[in-house]
Amino acid sequence: MSKEITSRHQDYAQWYNDLVLKGELADYSAVRGCMVIKPYGFALWENMRDALDKMFKDTGHVNAYFPLFIPKSFLSKEAAHVEGFAKECAVVTHYRLKNDPNGGGVIVDPEAKLEEELIVRPTSETIIWSTYKDWIQSYRDLPLLINQWANVVRWEMRTRLFLRTAEFLWQEGHTAHATREEAIEETEKMLNVYATFVEEYMAVPVIKGVKTASERFAGAEDTYCIEALMQDGKALQAGTSHFLGQNFAKAFDVKFLNNANQQEYVWATSWGVSTRLVGALVMAHSDDQGLVLPPKIAPLQVVIVPIYKGDEQKAQIDTKVKEIIEHLKNLGVRVKYDDNNNNRPGWKFAEYEMKGVPVRLALGARDLENNVIEVARRDTKEKKTVGLDGIAQYVSGLLIEIQYNLFEKAKTYRDTHITQANTWDEFEKLLDEKGGFIAAHWDGTAETEEAIKEKTKATIRCIPLDNLKEDGKCILTGKPSTQRVLFARAY
Amino acid sequence: MSKEITSRHQDYAQWYNDLVLKGELADYSAVRGCMVIKPYGFALWENMRDALDKMFKDTGHVNAYFPLFIPKSFLSKEAAHVEGFAKECAVVTHYRLKNDPNGGGVIVDPEAKLEEELIVRPTSETIIWSTYKDWIQSYRDLPLLINQWANVVRWEMRTRLFLRTAEFLWQEGHTAHATREEAIEETEKMLNVYATFVEEYMAVPVIKGVKTASERFAGAEDTYCIEALMQDGKALQAGTSHFLGQNFAKAFDVKFLNNANQQEYVWATSWGVSTRLVGALVMAHSDDQGLVLPPKIAPLQVVIVPIYKGDEQKAQIDTKVKEIIEHLKNLGVRVKYDDNNNNRPGWKFAEYEMKGVPVRLALGARDLENNVIEVARRDTKEKKTVGLDGIAQYVSGLLIEIQYNLFEKAKTYRDTHITQANTWDEFEKLLDEKGGFIAAHWDGTAETEEAIKEKTKATIRCIPLDNLKEDGKCILTGKPSTQRVLFARAY
Repeated sequence: MSKEITSRHQDYAQWYNDLVLKGELADYSAVRGCMVIKPYGFALWENMRDALDKMFKDTGHVNAYFPLFIPKSFLSKEAAHVEGFAKECAVVTHYRLKNDPNGGGVIVDPEAKLEEELIVRPTSETIIWSTYKDWIQSYRDLPLLINQWANVVRWEMRTRLFLRTAEFLWQEGHTAHATREEAIEETEKMLNVYATFVEEYMAVPVIKGVKTASERFAGAEDTYCIEALMQDGKALQAGTSHFLGQNFAKAFDVKFLNNANQQEYVWATSWGVSTRLVGALVMAHSDDQGLVLPPKIAPLQVVIVPIYKGDEQKAQIDTKVKEIIEHLKNLGVRVKYDDNNNNRPGWKFAEYEMKGVPVRLALGARDLENNVIEVARRDTKEKKTVGLDGIAQYVSGLLIEIQYNLFEKAKTYRDTHITQANTWDEFEKLLDEKGGFIAAHWDGTAETEEAIKEKTKATIRCIPLDNLKEDGKCILTGKPSTQRVLFARAY
Repeated sequence: MSKEITSRHQDYAQWYNDLVLKGELADYSAVRGCMVIKPYGFALWENMRDALDKMFKDTGHVNAYFPLFIPKSFLSKEAAHVEGFAKECAVVTHYRLKNDPNGGGVIVDPEAKLEEELIVRPTSETIIWSTYKDWIQSYRDLPLLINQWANVVRWEMRTRLFLRTAEFLWQEGHTAHATREEAIEETEKMLNVYATFVEEYMAVPVIKGVKTASERFAGAEDTYCIEALMQDGKALQAGTSHFLGQNFAKAFDVKFLNNANQQEYVWATSWGVSTRLVGALVMAHSDDQGLVLPPKIAPLQVVIVPIYKGDEQKAQIDTKVKEIIEHLKNLGVRVKYDDNNNNRPGWKFAEYEMKGVPVRLALGARDLENNVIEVARRDTKEKKTVGLDGIAQYVSGLLIEIQYNLFEKAKTYRDTHITQANTWDEFEKLLDEKGGFIAAHWDGTAETEEAIKEKTKATIRCIPLDNLKEDGKCILTGKPSTQRVLFARAY
C-alpha cells in the first residue's frame, strides 16, 4: 500500500481514512459496517481504556458484565428508549443452522426459531435495570456504582472507521441512587471524569454542557456532554453522561425501602465513551504527514533508529542504544529500537512519522564520536542535536512538553473558532466560511432547532454549563432568548 | 438470601451453585443460558485476564479486535470447522424492528431481512483468516502473533454458571507462521503459558497432553490441552492450544511468498481460555464454608475487622489499622478495612469466609494493649495471635505460603487420583468408586473410545506429553496398545 496521504486541504474525509488505514489503526472487514481494530490501533485504545478504568475505580466504581442479548420485549418497557434504540439493530431470530439438504452449505434451521427474538445490545439500560431489580431492596444496597466494558451494535446505514460503525467498543456506567440529588451529582461527576480524561490524556479541549431536549439520550431526563472541535471546524460529541431520573426504575419496577421505611423508585444515571474517541484523537492533532499522537496514550513514545555502515559501527551504536533504552524504561517510557536492516533510515523516518510516534532519536557513528544524538519531535517536526549525557531525562521532559503543546495548539484553534453570530446572515456565513462553534441566541423551541438543522445542517451541540445569561433575540425567529447556545455542524 | 451452603458431600452440583451465587461471583440473567458476572466475580476475572495478558505480551503477542459477526458462508469454508461450530449458534437474520401496527410493542420488520445471515461468533478462525489474507503477502509479514479478548456465543442446551454458558468471555490467540515447525513450536509454547498460569496463579495443577482425533478442535490437525481435576473426581479441560496446519489458510486462500520466492500456504495456530476457568477455580479449592481463593488472583487478599466498644476504642483501633494498611499497600497487598457498624464481627467473619478472602485480621482493644492481632487464614482456618510489630511483612509472607499450600493440597489430591486400571472391571470400579484420572491402555480406535464413553460416560482426557511407552492390551477390546491414556468423567 502506498504511504501517500491525501492532504487535509484536498479532501478532509479522505485524509482521515488514509490516516486510519495507512497508520494501521483499523481496517475494513468482511462484515458490512464492522471494522477490524488492528494491533497498533488497539494498543492505543488499551491505553485510553486503562487510564479511564483507573479513573472510574478511583471514583468508587466497579466493573461487571451483563449479557450481550436483550429480549425484544425489554426494549419496549421504557417508551422513549424504544423509539431511540429499537429501530436499527441486529436481531437474533434463530439458534441453529443445519446442512442444506440440497447441498448448498448450511442454512438456518426453521425449527430452531426463538420464541422471543433477542436484540444484540445497542446499550444496556434495559437488561441492567431488569437485573438491578433483584439486587436492590433497601437503601443499604445503594448506591450501586457499576461499569461495563463491552461491544455494542447499532445498525448504522452510513459508517466510517471509528466514527460510526455498526459494532463498536465502549464502556457504559450504570448507577443506582437513593436520591435525585445524588444521581445528578454522579452524572456531573462522570462528565468531569470524561472531560479530565479527554483534555489531560488525549490533549483535546472540550466544552462541557447539556443537550437540548431533542438531542437527549432516549430515556434520559437530562443529557450532559463534552463537545470537541475537529480541524475541519466540525464538532464531535466525545462523551455523554445521562441523568435518567426514575424512568428505568419505573419501567422495571425497581424500588427500595428508604430510611423512613417507605418504598421508593430508585434514581439512575448512565454514561459512556467509545472507540469513537480514537477517531476524535486522529482528527484533532494529525497532519498531512500522518498521525500525531499525544505521548500519554501513544502505544510507542520514542523510537530509536541507528545510522551506520558495517558491523563495527552497528555494534558501537547498539551498545549505546541499549544503555539509553534502559534509562528510558526506568523512567517509564515506551521505547522501541528499530534496527531492522531490511529498511533504510529514511523509510523508517517516514514510517514513524506516519504512525505519530512523538519522539524519534537517530544515532550515527559520527554522533557517537561527538557524544550527541539527533532528536526529532513529531508535533513541531523540529530536529535538534542534543548531548548524549542525560538524554533519557531530556526525552522524558520533552514528552511532557509535547503533550502540553498539543493541548495548547488544539485549544488555541478551538478558542479562535467559537464565534458569536447575531443575525441569520452572519450565522450562515460563519458556518460556511469559518466553521467551529457559533454562539447564538435561540428561542428555546424544538421547532426552531429543527428548522435551523434543516436549513444549515447545524445542530445545537450544547448549552455550556458555565453559560452567561444574556438577553437577546433568536437568530432565526427573532423571539426573545435568555442565553446563547453553541451551534455547529458535527460528526 | 440465606448464606447457608449445601455441603459437597450432600450435593456437589448444588454446593457449586451456592458458592457462585452466595459468593457473589455471578447471577442468572433474563436471557436463557447467559449469566451476569457480578463485580466480585468480575474483579477475579480481571486479575486472571491481566496476568494472562502480560504473559501473552511477554511472549511477543499483540491484541487486536475482530468483528462479532461472521457471515454464514464463512463457516462453511473449512469442512471440519462447520461441522463443529455451525450447529448451535445465534443467527442474526434481520437488522430492524418496527412498531407493531396492531399495537403490540415492536416487531421484527420483515423488510429488513439480511441478504446473508450473520452468526454471532462461536470462535473467530474464519473471520480472522479472511482478514489475514489481506495482511500477509510475504515471509516478512510473518509471524503474525495476535490475540483477542472477546465475548463468544454457543447455543448450549444445558448451561451452568461459568462452566457452560451460552455467552462467555475468553481470549483467542490466532497466529500465522511460515513453517510447520514454527507453528507447532508456538502451539506448544502457548500450552506452556496456560499451564504456568493455571498452576502459578490459580494454584491448580494440570496435566499437559494432546487430544485424540475425536476430541480435537474442529479444523485442527492437533489439539493440545491442559486437564485439571476437581474435588468430585471429575476432570475439567482448562485450556486448549491448536495446531491448525494449513487448513484455514487453504480455506481462505492465504498464501505468502517464501524466501525461495515461491507461493506457499501459511501455517496456523489458535489457543484459548475462558471464564470457564473461574468455575474450575471455585471447584478446585473451595470448601463447605465458601470460596477459597488463591492470593495471587483474589480480588481482596486481606480484610481487617475491628472489635470494639465505644468511640474511644474505635478511634485507637482506627489509628493502628490505618498504619497497617499503609504498610500492606506498600507491599502491594490488596486490603480492605471493614468498619461498617451495621454488621457485627461474627457476621463479617462468615461473610469473608464465604467470599474466600485469604487472610482475615481482627483487632480488638485488648489486642492493642498487648500489641498483638488475630490472624486467620482461610485455607486451613487456622487462627493465631501474632505480634503487631512487622505484621505487614508477616501477612505478606503468609499470602505466599497460602498460595503454595493451596497448590500442594490440590496436587496431592490430584496425584493420588491418577490410578492405573488393567482390566475392564477395575476400570469401571475405579470410575464409580474413586473417580479421578484412570491411566489405561486403549487400542487407538475412535470406535473403542466411543464405546467406552457410551458405557461409562468417561472420555479420553488426553495423551500426556510426557507419556511413557509401554506395551499392553486395550481395557475394552484386548487389542494391542503401546501406551496408557488418561480417562475420566469430565465437565
